[in-house]
Amino acid sequence: MIDTAAPTQAEIEELLTDKVVKSFADSPHERLGVVMGSLVRHLHAFIREVRLTESEWEAAIEFLTEVGHITDDRRQEFILLSDILGASMQTINVNYETTGNSTEATVFGPFFVDDAPRIEHGGDIAGDATGQPCWVAGSVRDTAGNPVAGARIEVWEADDDGFYDVQYDDQRVSGRAHLFSDDDGHYEFWGLTPTPYPIPHDGPVGRLLEATGRSPMRASHLHFMVSAPGLRTLVTHIFVRGDELLDHDTVFGVKESLVKDFVQQPADAPTPDGRDLNGQTWARAEFDVVLAPGDE
Amino acid sequence: MIDTAAPTQAEIEELLTDKVVKSFADSPHERLGVVMGSLVRHLHAFIREVRLTESEWEAAIEFLTEVGHITDDRRQEFILLSDILGASMQTINVNYETTGNSTEATVFGPFFVDDAPRIEHGGDIAGDATGQPCWVAGSVRDTAGNPVAGARIEVWEADDDGFYDVQYDDQRVSGRAHLFSDDDGHYEFWGLTPTPYPIPHDGPVGRLLEATGRSPMRASHLHFMVSAPGLRTLVTHIFVRGDELLDHDTVFGVKESLVKDFVQQPADAPTPDGRDLNGQTWARAEFDVVLAPGDE
Repeated sequence: MIDTAAPTQAEIEELLTDKVVKSFADSPHERLGVVMGSLVRHLHAFIREVRLTESEWEAAIEFLTEVGHITDDRRQEFILLSDILGASMQTINVNYETTGNSTEATVFGPFFVDDAPRIEHGGDIAGDATGQPCWVAGSVRDTAGNPVAGARIEVWEADDDGFYDVQYDDQRVSGRAHLFSDDDGHYEFWGLTPTPYPIPHDGPVGRLLEATGRSPMRASHLHFMVSAPGLRTLVTHIFVRGDELLDHDTVFGVKESLVKDFVQQPADAPTPDGRDLNGQTWARAEFDVVLAPGDE
Repeated sequence: MIDTAAPTQAEIEELLTDKVVKSFADSPHERLGVVMGSLVRHLHAFIREVRLTESEWEAAIEFLTEVGHITDDRRQEFILLSDILGASMQTINVNYETTGNSTEATVFGPFFVDDAPRIEHGGDIAGDATGQPCWVAGSVRDTAGNPVAGARIEVWEADDDGFYDVQYDDQRVSGRAHLFSDDDGHYEFWGLTPTPYPIPHDGPVGRLLEATGRSPMRASHLHFMVSAPGLRTLVTHIFVRGDELLDHDTVFGVKESLVKDFVQQPADAPTPDGRDLNGQTWARAEFDVVLAPGDE
């Protein structure tokens, strides 16, 4: 086993890490062994670096237990935890390396649903969701600049109370839809000017944010998922330039390339499609999507 | 925010890590901010190193959810997970740095209870627990070699079916006791020769062990907790030399200095205290404890 000369403290700690890593080396599922070995190295490096105390270890066990116990079919506190540690966003980063000028990806979030209604060119996704009307238009192209016709564009967002339709108990479908790019790769629709909202923060993750002086707020955003045959599916948001939360998004989803001008329009400004907004102010934003070469 | 020149992939990933670490920098609880910052750096380094896929991330969320859901007042699957990743043992290592010739610590385990019966010098801890009788004797000293009189010695172990008393439903108290060292620092008692047993492996942690080709078995051991005023409390085990599990203890608790000879005795060998074992074989082991200078 170990050399009989008394090992130094650092040697004791390194020997342990090596031994645990080695225990995963003969994993019949080779990739799982590699992942677990790397996890062990980094977990041990963390414990050694901060000289984790036993009471901190106990607090961590208790915290994870609470995260587990609040998690159910409707609430996934482990995903929230991953989000506020930037682990979700880092996973997106390593899976969607940018290719040339392709549009950057960001977190998917928990509020997408599969069967959002289809709207036509220039249709309205709001339904019963309240907020300022916002005209969103742009194009879908490949990295060579060719327009992509018939790309499926899913869009979804919170209302101006900060809630997605699925967070209400009444089965409403609002603030979400899908549409298709036209023959020139162009798309346009009416949505709502995005507003900020907090992630659920009445559980252990919320308490962690509070204890560390962090806000539970997400920067205002509008979700997109854009897919087309032969191109890589893009999951992303656009953000609102000037939003004071851009630098403090609690899930770290903001990328500079995704921050767009949402240009405020006076109530009497003519709308792009002649729609009568009954004297409301409105906004407009542009978002040109570039899809990377794909695997589907 | 970010430089408008397109950042490289590595820069994108590093910027994210830096941003998340920075989010914990103003924690009103300073130590918590430091611990979280370090955790984030190492967690992100892991994700980047293995290029964690989205389906692996999803599997991790699902696994942690299962660990949370099986955990209750009687079963703590997060502690098992920490144990089999060596995180529990590494935490012990960083909190019990060896001081001179002080005895090495190992994992506490979940089976200690506070109110084990007191036995006298040479008493028997077994109660109803079955197994081969084992005479255990030794001394308690400080690092200068002075005998420590009146040290409180807690000992506990599994029976030869691999179960601790608290794992039975009948409220039995067996295989555990406490005693005190005498004026010369000496102690001695009858216990049971330790036998190997598996950690609970019918849950997600057991499935992880199985998927990675690891055994759930712990090396045979006898638990000690030794305390005395002015000296550091020692939590440790002794292990059985020759046990084939010494190099494969699933919680990584084995240290060479804690492996002891459990010397087998023929049935007719006279016992140290003249006890009549009714023709059973028995064993004997010695364990001299050295307590580090303490904080209590």
